[in-house]
Amino acid sequence: MARPAFLYKSDPARGAIWKQCFEENLPGIEFRQWPEVGNPAEVRFLAAWEPPPDLASRFPALEVLFSVGAGIDQFDLAELPPTLHVVRMIEPGIVAGMVEYVTLAVLALHRDLPAYLEQQRAALWQARPRLPASRRRVRVLGLGSLGRAVLSALGNFGFDCAGWSRSQRAIEGVKCLSGTEGLTALVAQTDILICLLPLTAQTRGMINASLLAKLPRGAAFVNAGRGGHVVDNDLIHALDSGHLRAAVLDVCEPEPPAPDHPFWHHPKIWMTPHVASETQALTSAEAVMKNLRRHENGQPMDGLVDRIRGY
Amino acid sequence: MARPAFLYKSDPARGAIWKQCFEENLPGIEFRQWPEVGNPAEVRFLAAWEPPPDLASRFPALEVLFSVGAGIDQFDLAELPPTLHVVRMIEPGIVAGMVEYVTLAVLALHRDLPAYLEQQRAALWQARPRLPASRRRVRVLGLGSLGRAVLSALGNFGFDCAGWSRSQRAIEGVKCLSGTEGLTALVAQTDILICLLPLTAQTRGMINASLLAKLPRGAAFVNAGRGGHVVDNDLIHALDSGHLRAAVLDVCEPEPPAPDHPFWHHPKIWMTPHVASETQALTSAEAVMKNLRRHENGQPMDGLVDRIRGY
Repeated sequence: MARPAFLYKSDPARGAIWKQCFEENLPGIEFRQWPEVGNPAEVRFLAAWEPPPDLASRFPALEVLFSVGAGIDQFDLAELPPTLHVVRMIEPGIVAGMVEYVTLAVLALHRDLPAYLEQQRAALWQARPRLPASRRRVRVLGLGSLGRAVLSALGNFGFDCAGWSRSQRAIEGVKCLSGTEGLTALVAQTDILICLLPLTAQTRGMINASLLAKLPRGAAFVNAGRGGHVVDNDLIHALDSGHLRAAVLDVCEPEPPAPDHPFWHHPKIWMTPHVASETQALTSAEAVMKNLRRHENGQPMDGLVDRIRGY
Repeated sequence: MARPAFLYKSDPARGAIWKQCFEENLPGIEFRQWPEVGNPAEVRFLAAWEPPPDLASRFPALEVLFSVGAGIDQFDLAELPPTLHVVRMIEPGIVAGMVEYVTLAVLALHRDLPAYLEQQRAALWQARPRLPASRRRVRVLGLGSLGRAVLSALGNFGFDCAGWSRSQRAIEGVKCLSGTEGLTALVAQTDILICLLPLTAQTRGMINASLLAKLPRGAAFVNAGRGGHVVDNDLIHALDSGHLRAAVLDVCEPEPPAPDHPFWHHPKIWMTPHVASETQALTSAEAVMKNLRRHENGQPMDGLVDRIRGY
């Protein structure tokens, strides 16, 4: 009988590393790299950012769809076969990159780096008022593996940290809120707000005029989630009115933003081209192989998506 | 008999906080704030950034001069009474600020933030190659309380860390080098070089053409020490030739730099106005009171300067 096949459809350079890892560690599975699909009836596992259409008819034996990124918002869940397992990518390479990016953004905002770079352009040598980290209220939206790692790193600097998620979580040493009332309470006590939410029907457009108005005057915003979380015009308005002092954005919708999008040249916005974190070849291969073993043993996979909840 | 007097000559707002701390915790010592010197014969302790001249004749009973900052390079040691104890400021507020600043600078260089901000100005959405922290060689010159704290914070991100000091130190988990040969070996294996040295006759001008030439091409430099460590023209030349990719400078000599100093508008330099860290009122008062108790009990004070070594 043919070995079950694992089909990889994503960045070819990373695929070559996955192939080597699979062949050395999981000889019972045949690794195939798109477009070399082979016999589609043997494909039980698919790893992709953008899967091909008609999965059910194309790969009748498909059991698991692995996202090669942290999010699954690029999948149209309603179009996927209803019994297909969908798995987010949880791997230490993504986590490390995100911790670096968000810490950089928070420290830059905490220490007024944008204003100091402006002062430098004006040849102005002048210290600005400074708060100790313990008086800087940093709040993270989204308490999955990324949000938790970010909170832990920021806690090392002594920031006043808290987090929010849709359903209540518990993190040692971090105040965790949940639900609509929790969000309102959290946002009102925020100096730097960080979005690390999954993008779902519920979270789309969540960073809007109503939420931004609840932030204290002078707060700053970091988006390392998805562009779709933000209502762009509402964010621009909050910055232009002086209510927000700055935004650091790694994501936008669509990407890249149109050449005349106001994010490009807004004086209070730093924008980076979706580089906060990306899947690392070796660590992601290891994470997927570990999940395949769990699946074969009947254990739940890390990052298994609740198809109803959407993340 | 009159109580021994502690004279404070520095920022008045911080002085008011010190005065309250002293009165509550050290009633045996009379706290005086410059220019209210009182009877100079009673002054046994002086805290200052810039002490008044002729200390020996002015305060014949003076035993200890406390710097209100981390450095003592602002003192002319040769002019001070030879038996006077000179004490650097070691207090958690300075350390925390420095850890924040250097981590910010290293993460910005590690994640190419200067280049991404340029790309934003050009409306260019393009990911740049990225190294994992484990492959970024970060090296700290100066392994006192600041250098050690910085190395510990950077270690949390997984950077490849090492340090150098004049005399050999040992820090768990960090490769420590010393001496002239150690410096040459260290610099040759450096992607981001951080200066946290004390400014002494030996370290003045240490960041010069000879040292910079030993850095690998494409290295970056962070100066959170003193402006006098750097030969400005040599640094500019190393940046202009493309040998160095960037410098983040918090200090300069003199401060502020002249309006036509090339640091102001150099495209590869970020300069901040000596704000990396400053003494925090409450924690510094506690550190000085602790040292006074140690002194009264005949114990060595934290940060006591070796007058020969100069730090």
